[in-house]
Amino acid sequence: MDVTDASGAERASSAPSTALLTDRYELTMVQAALRSGAAHRRSVFEVFTRRLPEGRRYGVVGGTGRVLDAIESFRFDGARLDWLSDQGVVDDATLGWLADYRFGGDISGYPEGQVYFPGSPILTVEGSFAEAVVLETVVLSILNHDSAVAAAASRMTAAAGERPCIEMGARRTHEYAAPAAARAAHIAGFASTSDLEAGFRYGIPTGGTSAHAFTLLHDTERDAFTAQVVSMGRGTTLLVDTYDLAEAVRTAVDVAGPSLGAVRIDSGDLLMLAHRVRRQLDELGAKETRILVTSDLDEYAIAALAAAPVDAYGVGTSLVTGSGHPTCSMVYKLVARASSDEPDAPLLPVAKRSAGAKTSRGGRKWAARRLDADGIAEAEVVGTGPVPHDLADRVVQVPLVRGGEVVGREPLAVARARHAAVRAQLPLSATQLSRGEPVLPTELVSRSGHAGG
Amino acid sequence: MDVTDASGAERASSAPSTALLTDRYELTMVQAALRSGAAHRRSVFEVFTRRLPEGRRYGVVGGTGRVLDAIESFRFDGARLDWLSDQGVVDDATLGWLADYRFGGDISGYPEGQVYFPGSPILTVEGSFAEAVVLETVVLSILNHDSAVAAAASRMTAAAGERPCIEMGARRTHEYAAPAAARAAHIAGFASTSDLEAGFRYGIPTGGTSAHAFTLLHDTERDAFTAQVVSMGRGTTLLVDTYDLAEAVRTAVDVAGPSLGAVRIDSGDLLMLAHRVRRQLDELGAKETRILVTSDLDEYAIAALAAAPVDAYGVGTSLVTGSGHPTCSMVYKLVARASSDEPDAPLLPVAKRSAGAKTSRGGRKWAARRLDADGIAEAEVVGTGPVPHDLADRVVQVPLVRGGEVVGREPLAVARARHAAVRAQLPLSATQLSRGEPVLPTELVSRSGHAGG
Repeated sequence: MDVTDASGAERASSAPSTALLTDRYELTMVQAALRSGAAHRRSVFEVFTRRLPEGRRYGVVGGTGRVLDAIESFRFDGARLDWLSDQGVVDDATLGWLADYRFGGDISGYPEGQVYFPGSPILTVEGSFAEAVVLETVVLSILNHDSAVAAAASRMTAAAGERPCIEMGARRTHEYAAPAAARAAHIAGFASTSDLEAGFRYGIPTGGTSAHAFTLLHDTERDAFTAQVVSMGRGTTLLVDTYDLAEAVRTAVDVAGPSLGAVRIDSGDLLMLAHRVRRQLDELGAKETRILVTSDLDEYAIAALAAAPVDAYGVGTSLVTGSGHPTCSMVYKLVARASSDEPDAPLLPVAKRSAGAKTSRGGRKWAARRLDADGIAEAEVVGTGPVPHDLADRVVQVPLVRGGEVVGREPLAVARARHAAVRAQLPLSATQLSRGEPVLPTELVSRSGHAGG
Repeated sequence: MDVTDASGAERASSAPSTALLTDRYELTMVQAALRSGAAHRRSVFEVFTRRLPEGRRYGVVGGTGRVLDAIESFRFDGARLDWLSDQGVVDDATLGWLADYRFGGDISGYPEGQVYFPGSPILTVEGSFAEAVVLETVVLSILNHDSAVAAAASRMTAAAGERPCIEMGARRTHEYAAPAAARAAHIAGFASTSDLEAGFRYGIPTGGTSAHAFTLLHDTERDAFTAQVVSMGRGTTLLVDTYDLAEAVRTAVDVAGPSLGAVRIDSGDLLMLAHRVRRQLDELGAKETRILVTSDLDEYAIAALAAAPVDAYGVGTSLVTGSGHPTCSMVYKLVARASSDEPDAPLLPVAKRSAGAKTSRGGRKWAARRLDADGIAEAEVVGTGPVPHDLADRVVQVPLVRGGEVVGREPLAVARARHAAVRAQLPLSATQLSRGEPVLPTELVSRSGHAGG
């Protein structure tokens, strides 16, 4: 692997408007609510999920930082207002309101890298109905995507133990989902990424090897290896499975010498081949040369290679598609709103209550993670009303936006360290790969302090 | 549904640079090949897939138009070159080459909306090794994502028959994957999308209803329905499952009158509820009021509702995640290259030939779809060398780029019409939802004209 270190800071993107990353009904609801007068009612929306993907033990919050960026760029510029007007999406009164739009409310939420469970209040958005409802789609798009990748990445890095995982999935996902996926994976423990945009935007270390095409381009494998070593140095990673593996390993060490950085195996029975290549490298004196494996790896394949002499895992498809669960089921629900149009009307809890399955619980929630005597998490406690004293210092949400100003931005390294710390605090069964129940129960506490459904 | 018509033309995006939507190894391979001299060898890369997702009968090409846009925007600007330099990704000679980069070669491929099969040469990129290899990641990202959505969309629209399908999945995928998904779905027959960005960028019709939050915001369901009808007119779609469904339908018709446009049901047993709501609407005299169903629909759920009185399907999660297959397994492989560094050296077929499973066939391919006497497709014929005379007018690839100039751009409506036409030309079993083999066999024809593996 030729790897560049993280530059440390996220790069401010050119920040195109995010205002149309929005479902049409949000703007027409604003129009109707402006007309009815209810648009200005103080409202609390909550992002949560009713369940984890089947068999998963915990979820991982990814995307919070990107949500903050998206909210800052949520501005309706001239081109977008003209288009909305031309298309007759909303009326002139609403266009005027959109033209002045700046989110001015408050947002709290689970910080990035934190784990979550069914019912966890992952994000709480409070403002007027109109200013909060329009953020629904872009907030959910980001959190549902990034958290799906973060959850898969966390399982993979747990399975890999001390060995580094490298994100290589850009070609298997939307071109702009790719850097977001690399970012989420990095938070959940991936060491580096092949995706240059992720390095450029977020300062994530980038790395790479070479492709079969590079070998095929040259007249012989020796020519290709020589070209690469001359250009990249002996620390480079040579791809050894274009023709005959044993021959390629021999040629690689012959060309680069025993200080060759690494070889990559991208096909075949990786368990058997890793042993064979390790033996051959050792016999050739290349005892420090590492073995990188790639080829449709997922957390199960990584775990199956635990006893093999593998030094690093390159993971693509399975990572960027959430290892079978490419999206989370997070929803953005109104849980409380002003009880009338009066300016200081108190908040009233609200919830859908049809006969269908999609019911939820009204009221603004807090969440706290209760630990046992050994400091291991034993429950996700979610409640409305005041936080019980014994849980006051275990509250999970942090302030993210106050009066429209972002207050919760943090370096990626902080989120990455947080994820490692909170995962280590979960019961051991959290990182079992086998299917099971969420590793923490969610206990619902009612306003009076008693547990309730 | 409040729907706006397509404006007809795709909107030129602000076109940020796509040059770093690239795996690092592509640039380091360019560096090594510039050094070895092989960078300038004429090369042919081919995009193809070794298999369809398990059980699928055909693939659908999505994203070709976006690939052409991405190639035009593949330019290394100052900020990106500075970053590559700061990070030491490549040396100065390579930075100079990148600064001048413009793709100057030729691209042919399957046009958008076309169907494909294992081995189909979906895209053929010809140029110098260096100018063609750097496009690998962005080309695959776009085609793998958009084609996965297009394939799922095609199954859904086939299952829906004459009833419109509406794309509503933006919240379940990356925020910029969302408009691309809406675009791919539209090509494969979806009528409209909830995603405003897709309307803005691509001129796809947008539509929407309202959310439970809008009902919960108001003091009563009647207040909410009244607000929506006053603002949006009687043709609007009212969401009727926030509280009691029968009560809501009664209130809806009471507020809007029998000319109410539609009602939306978003939870519960949709088959039973659609029948019940239809009966109630008819009894209330609202015989023209349509029923829109949403709620985790996929092609199977759509098919199961074929006999229900449903007028339109809103599809989200399952569509944007490819209905179980969120990415395709398309690869970008070197299949031929100049046999030496001489300027006019003939092309030599090349292919990986290790013991692993990922082998492929060298040589630049053509593809033709052979029809039977009734005009129904019977085989995907893929070959190298000259196209047999009897297949000359059935060649599937079209010119997309010539000498670096895009020649294959077309309106979305053309791709949409193409998809409907080519799907109708497949054997009937193509649109069976049950798992099976690809509906057309891929016949490989060797240079001499004989079939071969």
